Amino acid sequence: MTDHYLAAGCTGITVLGIMGEAPKLDHQEAIEVAARMIKRAAPAPIIVGVSAPGFAAMRALARSVMEAGAAGVMIAPVPSLRTDEQIVGYFRQAAEAIGTDIPWVLQDYPLTLTVQMTPGVIRRIIQDNPSCQMLKHEDWPGLEKISALRGFEKDGSMRPISILTGNGALFLDFEMERGADGAMTGYAFPEMLVDVVRLAKEGHRDAAHDLFDAHLPLLRYEQQQGVGLAVRKYVMMRRGVIACDAQRKPGSSLSHTAKSEVDYLLARLARIDKRAEIKPRLAQAS
Amino acid sequence: MTDHYLAAGCTGITVLGIMGEAPKLDHQEAIEVAARMIKRAAPAPIIVGVSAPGFAAMRALARSVMEAGAAGVMIAPVPSLRTDEQIVGYFRQAAEAIGTDIPWVLQDYPLTLTVQMTPGVIRRIIQDNPSCQMLKHEDWPGLEKISALRGFEKDGSMRPISILTGNGALFLDFEMERGADGAMTGYAFPEMLVDVVRLAKEGHRDAAHDLFDAHLPLLRYEQQQGVGLAVRKYVMMRRGVIACDAQRKPGSSLSHTAKSEVDYLLARLARIDKRAEIKPRLAQAS
Amino acid sequence: MTDHYLAAGCTGITVLGIMGEAPKLDHQEAIEVAARMIKRAAPAPIIVGVSAPGFAAMRALARSVMEAGAAGVMIAPVPSLRTDEQIVGYFRQAAEAIGTDIPWVLQDYPLTLTVQMTPGVIRRIIQDNPSCQMLKHEDWPGLEKISALRGFEKDGSMRPISILTGNGALFLDFEMERGADGAMTGYAFPEMLVDVVRLAKEGHRDAAHDLFDAHLPLLRYEQQQGVGLAVRKYVMMRRGVIACDAQRKPGSSLSHTAKSEVDYLLARLARIDKRAEIKPRLAQAS
Amino acid sequence: MTDHYLAAGCTGITVLGIMGEAPKLDHQEAIEVAARMIKRAAPAPIIVGVSAPGFAAMRALARSVMEAGAAGVMIAPVPSLRTDEQIVGYFRQAAEAIGTDIPWVLQDYPLTLTVQMTPGVIRRIIQDNPSCQMLKHEDWPGLEKISALRGFEKDGSMRPISILTGNGALFLDFEMERGADGAMTGYAFPEMLVDVVRLAKEGHRDAAHDLFDAHLPLLRYEQQQGVGLAVRKYVMMRRGVIACDAQRKPGSSLSHTAKSEVDYLLARLARIDKRAEIKPRLAQAS
Repeated sequence: MTDHYLAAGCTGITVLGIMGEAPKLDHQEAIEVAARMIKRAAPAPIIVGVSAPGFAAMRALARSVMEAGAAGVMIAPVPSLRTDEQIVGYFRQAAEAIGTDIPWVLQDYPLTLTVQMTPGVIRRIIQDNPSCQMLKHEDWPGLEKISALRGFEKDGSMRPISILTGNGALFLDFEMERGADGAMTGYAFPEMLVDVVRLAKEGHRDAAHDLFDAHLPLLRYEQQQGVGLAVRKYVMMRRGVIACDAQRKPGSSLSHTAKSEVDYLLARLARIDKRAEIKPRLAQAS
Repeated sequence: MTDHYLAAGCTGITVLGIMGEAPKLDHQEAIEVAARMIKRAAPAPIIVGVSAPGFAAMRALARSVMEAGAAGVMIAPVPSLRTDEQIVGYFRQAAEAIGTDIPWVLQDYPLTLTVQMTPGVIRRIIQDNPSCQMLKHEDWPGLEKISALRGFEKDGSMRPISILTGNGALFLDFEMERGADGAMTGYAFPEMLVDVVRLAKEGHRDAAHDLFDAHLPLLRYEQQQGVGLAVRKYVMMRRGVIACDAQRKPGSSLSHTAKSEVDYLLARLARIDKRAEIKPRLAQAS
Repeated sequence: MTDHYLAAGCTGITVLGIMGEAPKLDHQEAIEVAARMIKRAAPAPIIVGVSAPGFAAMRALARSVMEAGAAGVMIAPVPSLRTDEQIVGYFRQAAEAIGTDIPWVLQDYPLTLTVQMTPGVIRRIIQDNPSCQMLKHEDWPGLEKISALRGFEKDGSMRPISILTGNGALFLDFEMERGADGAMTGYAFPEMLVDVVRLAKEGHRDAAHDLFDAHLPLLRYEQQQGVGLAVRKYVMMRRGVIACDAQRKPGSSLSHTAKSEVDYLLARLARIDKRAEIKPRLAQAS
Repeated sequence: MTDHYLAAGCTGITVLGIMGEAPKLDHQEAIEVAARMIKRAAPAPIIVGVSAPGFAAMRALARSVMEAGAAGVMIAPVPSLRTDEQIVGYFRQAAEAIGTDIPWVLQDYPLTLTVQMTPGVIRRIIQDNPSCQMLKHEDWPGLEKISALRGFEKDGSMRPISILTGNGALFLDFEMERGADGAMTGYAFPEMLVDVVRLAKEGHRDAAHDLFDAHLPLLRYEQQQGVGLAVRKYVMMRRGVIACDAQRKPGSSLSHTAKSEVDYLLARLARIDKRAEIKPRLAQAS
C-alpha cells in the first residue's frame, strides 16, 4: 500500500494524506488505518493505494478497503516494467486481479518508480480498462503531458478522466491551468492546495499564483526526499494539527539547524498567509 | 516474502524450493504455504524469506512463520540502499525489528536487487548482528567473495558462518571448492545439487564436475530470467514431481519450440544421468 | 565533457555556464569551445568538465584544456560505481590518470549519476588526493552534507576545500548559510546567483532570501529536466544575452503554452527585479 | 566506441574481437586501432562500434572509421531511453547524424544498457532506417525474440536483416537453430564459435551441441562480469594467441586460485577439443 488519500467530493481535491508512511504498516494495520480514515471522512470519498509486488496481495488489500467503504483504489506500476507493451499488459492484469467492479486510479510517477508512460500509453490503459477512472499525475516535467491528455479527450481518442496532480504540488499553479482537476499530494498546508485549486477554477490567475508563490520557498524545502516528511510533520505539529512528529523506523529527523530554517520560512510565510503563524505553546513542545 | 526453502539438516543443502512464486501469494497464503511446508519437512529445518518494503510487515511475517516452526528467516536489502552505511544500518534495524531472538540469513543478491555489499560490509553485518547466522551468496561473479569471507574467518576478524549459494547454481562446482557449505537455489533436478555438494565434500573433484557439467546445458537454459521458472516447472512435471506446470499470473509460458529444446536437452542429459529420462505418460499430459 | 564553467576569482562564484550541451560536442569542438571561453574570461579562472567513460579520454581532454589555460578540471563518477571502496578507488585512479599536477573538482551528483557518496567517503577522497581542491555539491537533499563536511574541517579530520553548489540553485539560499562558498550552476539570471551569494556573505539574510524568493517561481520552472535548458535559452534570448535559443539535436523545444507561462513568470518577477523586464524588440524575434 | 569486430564475409561470423577494452581508448587511439585492424583483416569486413553520449562524437567517429575502410558501424541506445517512442526517435536521429550512407548495426543489449526493445520496436527501427542492416542480438532471454523477428520477415512486415548474437555465446547453440546468422561476441576460443555456426548451418545438430557443451563450463566461467575479460586474455595468452594478458586500468586480474580453476577447465576441455591443450612454454610465462 503506497498511500491513502481523502479526496473532497467530486472536485477531486485532496485535503488529507497520511504522510507517506503507509509502507511502514503491516497488512492488518494498513486496513485498520484505512477503515478509520474512511469512517471519519464520510461522506467524502477516500482512495486507498493498493500497489503491491504481487496481484494476490493487491487483490486482498483492494477487496478489504472497498468493503471498509473506500471509493476506489490507486495502482502504481512495478518498477521493473520498461516497454509500452509491458506497462499496458500489467495494468490489464492488475484491473482483472482486483476485479473490474473496483474503480481505480492510475499512478504515473516516473521519478520514483522509473517507469515511463507516454501520453499514448496512458490513453491505451484508459481505453482498455473502463474501471480506470482517474490519473494521479506525477511525471516531472509533466505540464505538456496534461495538455496532451486533455487534447486526446478533445479529439475524441480518449474518454474523459479526472486528473489529480502529485509531486508535492511543486507545479500545481500551472498544472491547474493545463487542465488538472485538483491535487492529490502532501504538503504541510493542505488548505493552500485547496485554495489554489479553487482560485484557479474561479479564474483568479494572479491570486492563485500570489498565494502559491508565497508558499513556494517552504513547499520547495519540503520537497527534499527523505527529509521532506520530517519537515511536513514538524510543521503540522507546530501548527497544532498533530500532537507529535515522530516517525516509524526507518525515519528521518530534522537537525536543530533544519528546524531553525523551517521556522524562518514559516515566519516569512506568515507575513502573507496568517495560517503560517506559529503557535507559541506548540513551539515549546518541539 | 521472497522465497521458501527447505535446508536439509546441518549440511545446509537445499532440497526443495517453491519456485520463485512467493511474491504472488498474499499475506495469509504465504503463512499457510510456509506452515504446510515446515510440517511436511520436519525434522528438517526450513528458512522462510521475509523481505518486505517495511519493517512492520517483515516483523509480522517473521513472527508468524517462526511460530509455525520455521528454523529461521531470510532478509534481502531493499533496492534503494547504496552506501556502506545505509546497508549496515538497514540490517541493524531489520534485525531489531524482527527481534534479536530470531536467527536470520543475509541475502546478497546484487544482480536483481542492485545492492552491492563488499566482503567488508558483510563482515560488519555479521559482527554487528549475532542473530545473523548464514549468508545466501548470490553475487555474480562471487567466487572471490567466498574466498575473502572464509579468509576473514581464518584471520579471526569474522566469526564463522554458514554460506549457501544461489544464482541458480551456475557456479556451484567451484563455489563448493571455495568454501561454500551448500546450495540454496532452485533447479529442476535438486538431487543433482545434493550430489555435487556431497561429491565436493568427499573430495571427488572430477566426479563432481562430471555430474555438474552434464547438467550445465539444461541448468544454463533454466537460468533465463522470466522463462526459467517455466522451464523448471515443465521439467518437474515431465519428471512426475509435480502434476501441473501452471503459474499464477503474471506468469511466463514456454513456446512449442522452447519445449522441444528442453526435451532435446533432457534426452542428451539422460545419456549420462538416468534421472533425466522422460516418463512417456507424463509427456502426453503436457 | 560534461560542463564548462567560469568561476569568478577566489570567491568561487559561477557567472557563466554553457548550458548543458557539452556532451553534444565532439572531442575537437569541446577543446575549441573551452579554449575560446578561457581566453575571453581571462583573468577569471575556468574549470572544464572532463568526465569520460575511460581514463585515456579523460586524460587527453584534461591535458588539452589545461594547455589551453583552464584553471582546473571537474570529474564525476561513472554511474556503475556502488560501494564506498569502488568510489574511493575510482577517484584515486582518475587523479592518477590525468596527472596529479592538475587541480580538480569532485562532482557529487547522485540524482543524475546514481552514485551516492557519504560525507565520510568524500572526506576519504579529499584526504587521498591532494590535487582535489573543490567539491561541486549537487546532492539532494544536501544541506546536512554541507554542514557535515564543514564539521570535518572544524574537527581537523579533513583539510579545508571550496564547496560550490549546483542542482540549479534550488537551495542556494540555505546552502550559503550552511557554509557553501558559491554556486556553480546554470540559471537564466546568473547575476541573481551572484547577488544572493554576495548578500549571504555580507550577512544580509533577509535581503538574500527576498531576492531568491522572487526568482524561485521561475527558477523552479527552469528545474524541469529536459525542458529546463529550453527555458533558460528562451529567457536569455528574451533578455538579449544570446541571439538564438536553438539547441543541437537531441534538443527540447518549448510549446507556445510553455512560452506564455515563462513570459507570465518574467512579468511577475519584473515587479521586484527590473532585470526581468522583457525587451520588446527581442520578443518579436522569438 | 564500444567494440570492434571482424565479421568473416557474408556469413557474418565473428572471428576476432578486441576484448571489451575499447572504452579505455581515447579518440585518436580508437581510430588508430580500428584502422590497423581493418587493414590486417582485409578483405574481411569490419564493423566498428561508435556508440557515444552525443551525436557529434558519434558522427566524428563513424566518418573516421568509414574512411579507414570499415564495412559499417554499430550503435547502442543511450541508457536513459525508456519508452518505445524515445527508442525509435533516438535511432532515427542517430542514423541521420552519422549520415544515411553509412550502414549500421543495431545493438540490443538490455542487461547492460537497461534499454528494452520489443520485437515490434526493432521492426519499426528496421523499417524506418534503410541504412540499418544488421541486429546484434544480446537480449537475455532472447531465443523467442529471434523467432519473432524471423516471423516478421516471413509475414512480410519487416525486410530481411542479418542477426548476429552476442552475450558471450551462452545460448549460441539454440540461437543458430532459431535463425541467427552467426555470432558477434568474444570468447577465448573464437574458432569454436565458427565451428558451431558452421555445424548448425550444415544441419549437424548433435555435433554442434557436442562441441558447444564441451566448451560450456569454460564459456560460462568467462561470462563472469568484470572477471571475464581477465579469463579470456589469460586463456589466449596460454594458447599463444597474445603475448601478454595485461589490461589497461581500470582492469581486473585473476587470483592464483582463479588461474588454477581456468587451468583445470582447460585440461578437462582438452580431453574433447585438442585446441585447449596448454602449451608448456607459455604456461611458464604466466
